[in-house]
Amino acid sequence: MISLYDLEFTDGRRPSPFCWRAKFALAHKGLAWQEVPVGFTEKDKIAFSGQKLLPVIVDHAQGDAVVPDSGAIAAYLDRTYPQKPQLIADPASVRFVSNWTGPVVHAAIFAMMVADMYARVRPQDRDYFRQSRARWIGTEDFEAFQAAARTDRLASFRHSLEPLRLQLKAGPFLSGETPSYLDYIVASAFLWARSVTSFALLDAGDPIIPWRDRMIDLYGFGQKAVVVT
Amino acid sequence: MISLYDLEFTDGRRPSPFCWRAKFALAHKGLAWQEVPVGFTEKDKIAFSGQKLLPVIVDHAQGDAVVPDSGAIAAYLDRTYPQKPQLIADPASVRFVSNWTGPVVHAAIFAMMVADMYARVRPQDRDYFRQSRARWIGTEDFEAFQAAARTDRLASFRHSLEPLRLQLKAGPFLSGETPSYLDYIVASAFLWARSVTSFALLDAGDPIIPWRDRMIDLYGFGQKAVVVT
Repeated sequence: MISLYDLEFTDGRRPSPFCWRAKFALAHKGLAWQEVPVGFTEKDKIAFSGQKLLPVIVDHAQGDAVVPDSGAIAAYLDRTYPQKPQLIADPASVRFVSNWTGPVVHAAIFAMMVADMYARVRPQDRDYFRQSRARWIGTEDFEAFQAAARTDRLASFRHSLEPLRLQLKAGPFLSGETPSYLDYIVASAFLWARSVTSFALLDAGDPIIPWRDRMIDLYGFGQKAVVVT
Repeated sequence: MISLYDLEFTDGRRPSPFCWRAKFALAHKGLAWQEVPVGFTEKDKIAFSGQKLLPVIVDHAQGDAVVPDSGAIAAYLDRTYPQKPQLIADPASVRFVSNWTGPVVHAAIFAMMVADMYARVRPQDRDYFRQSRARWIGTEDFEAFQAAARTDRLASFRHSLEPLRLQLKAGPFLSGETPSYLDYIVASAFLWARSVTSFALLDAGDPIIPWRDRMIDLYGFGQKAVVVT
């Protein structure tokens, strides 16, 4: 059994895209895990990991090995469970997909839903979220920031996803016939959005939608996740 | 020996980024090749390949095997010469880098140097270039289009290269300690630009520049290539 320390919002929402990456990785490997919900102001729960970011896993079958960081978790699982399906065939090019997802996908999605996120943070974490995110975006007026981002950034965000559309011409998953960590990196951003906003990030006819929905349903995640409608 | 059919402009310039990918792939594999320059209006030279795009290789050591398409060439070389250093560890994620490079890097670079390209096409190919590229961009006034692109697109182009900057924090090459096809895909765009324009695509302090220069010098390509200054 593996324990997964997982960021929690209200109503059991699990927004963190990096925690979704870890859940996809565990499911891909066919490993069982139990989730330990952690609020923004409960970082003492992961003090044992020597750092403050989620996700963290503790692998009880491996002497309670502690691994923080979604990328390190994927590498650990491939290394520790090599007999299970491989997650990452080439670390450098998978890192590129992650380095694209951060500034292009995460940054734009965050801007277009920051107020919706704020509305769904646990009450005891609201001050933490407001202060830390205001430092990121330069204002505490999340509603105004979000509204402006939806006006100013939506078209360029959709255009910036062109690599995904080209990729999906070659197969049902970004990785080809079957999903791998490349799919999990990008899909996790959409699972994040889905847990906190009903805003339509994609145009109704976008060929990315069938892939996104396929990823949401994979491993039963869609059924389990809290959704904003 | 391998024959490489390679797009040629004036003064022996070799602009095609896809042909540069093939040259990087051949050099990575330690294979010798001879170049057969082909102008835009000399596609009869590659009629034997059953298609009209460069590069094409003919592998004389393998019964004159004919392989068009830079991606197919890289896959062919890995398959046929597995004892040489591997080019592509994971086709799907390398394909993602190529699918990013097209709409993000090639599209912007092309717009910002189309008039400079036109000035360096072989005289007998100028009509072909003007007509075909005017269909792409909707105008034959390449000077005005290029000037507008340099004003309107340079900042967003530079910003869109953020994945490269993040990637280079982990090592001297996009692939880590040593270069592989991921580096070749992106570097080929800069070798293309370098052969036809002196326009500064990157800010002088950009951390991408040392990598770009490292790639230009790799395999002696920088010394061999025609450069616009």
